[in-house]
Amino acid sequence: MNLSIDIGNTLTKMAVIDKGQVVDIYKIEKLNIEFVQSVLKSYPKIDSAIMITCKDVNDNKESIDYLRSTLSTFIDFNSSITVPITNLYKSPLTLGCDRLAAAIGAKAIYPNNNVLIFDFGTAITIDFVSAENEYIGGNISPGISMRLNALNYYTENLPLVAFDEDFNLIGTHTEQAVLNGVINGIIFEIEGYISRFDEKYTDLRIIFTGGNGNFFANQVKNPIFATYNLVVFGLNRILEYNAE
Amino acid sequence: MNLSIDIGNTLTKMAVIDKGQVVDIYKIEKLNIEFVQSVLKSYPKIDSAIMITCKDVNDNKESIDYLRSTLSTFIDFNSSITVPITNLYKSPLTLGCDRLAAAIGAKAIYPNNNVLIFDFGTAITIDFVSAENEYIGGNISPGISMRLNALNYYTENLPLVAFDEDFNLIGTHTEQAVLNGVINGIIFEIEGYISRFDEKYTDLRIIFTGGNGNFFANQVKNPIFATYNLVVFGLNRILEYNAE
Repeated sequence: MNLSIDIGNTLTKMAVIDKGQVVDIYKIEKLNIEFVQSVLKSYPKIDSAIMITCKDVNDNKESIDYLRSTLSTFIDFNSSITVPITNLYKSPLTLGCDRLAAAIGAKAIYPNNNVLIFDFGTAITIDFVSAENEYIGGNISPGISMRLNALNYYTENLPLVAFDEDFNLIGTHTEQAVLNGVINGIIFEIEGYISRFDEKYTDLRIIFTGGNGNFFANQVKNPIFATYNLVVFGLNRILEYNAE
Repeated sequence: MNLSIDIGNTLTKMAVIDKGQVVDIYKIEKLNIEFVQSVLKSYPKIDSAIMITCKDVNDNKESIDYLRSTLSTFIDFNSSITVPITNLYKSPLTLGCDRLAAAIGAKAIYPNNNVLIFDFGTAITIDFVSAENEYIGGNISPGISMRLNALNYYTENLPLVAFDEDFNLIGTHTEQAVLNGVINGIIFEIEGYISRFDEKYTDLRIIFTGGNGNFFANQVKNPIFATYNLVVFGLNRILEYNAE
């Protein structure tokens, strides 16, 4: 049994994975040793863990040291770990802490396909992994909240509009104009990428992940595999790969 | 001969218009009486002016008083002026200082068509005017610079990337990922709107205006009428309408 730990900017996700299946997932603000001990107590079969972090790891040193000394395998994905994918990104160090893990998770789901991954977080990342198991690259675009905040922050007259799923094609008052502009903009952006990649690559599969993944999966016509757990799934694949 | 004055947040545009044609256009930081006098001296046939302002008009009081006392007609478009269009926007006071003028300019160009207007400024506004001469409404979305700035400001790890016309479909390093994400995002957004409105409305015409209008007009396949002067053109139409 494996533990995949994704230490994000605001939240840490910790998934208990058995034979490739997520059996339990915890979301906590900050890793602490009591919590880690309670998870290991609940799942005594856990013998390996992998961790990825977007922020200064010293924050979690005690918990990490505990895992490292307790488990038979502990991988800190920040170091130069071998991965089951060819990374063609030219600046791998600035790839973003979790985009490569997400790409590996995507290949675990669709090993023989070209895959386009949309991760809806603070920023939206759009990443492409080829059928030949190569991480080709990706783009970065503002997420929903970032767009709503920016329209207020960078202009004099626009209000701060809260996200709401109730939007339409064209606004007839200012708040609606902003909400529509942001949501339709992202939907059209998704559709544009899918259409361009579909023209260029055969057997394309599409995965949505991150906070608003399900909402946007319902807005586009294409078949979408939506999952909250792509990064932890990818981490688990890296762990398995290094144990092989 | 008419004068159309568009006092923007950062720049004032002053157009000299003769029989619906822009014969001269000035862009200055701040209106001042010496400048206004020099324009009137260069074009002694100017007898009417119309002005729209996005900011506190007291800034330009001296110039405005001078125009008002010198010319036979002076219209301050901030007051309740009759316009040659039906405004269906439910919050006309918050419509944005120039979107209605742009819509009227669009109808002066395509009087019998459904028209979709993209104005590429700090924000991108997407406005729709029907063939029946009704301003229906519109959406608001972040512009290029706003997106580039926001990706840096609202994240810990992304750099501030400068706008550059040299982009491609997929980034292989972080700066390119950001630039691609922003530019492709806007292109796909434009294409999405055009496609949705084209399905819904017959004889659709498309106008791009604002700073990046020409750049984006070159990126999409649809025929686009691109102009820097839609607002001043619309203002002139309002002036003519009120003189009829």
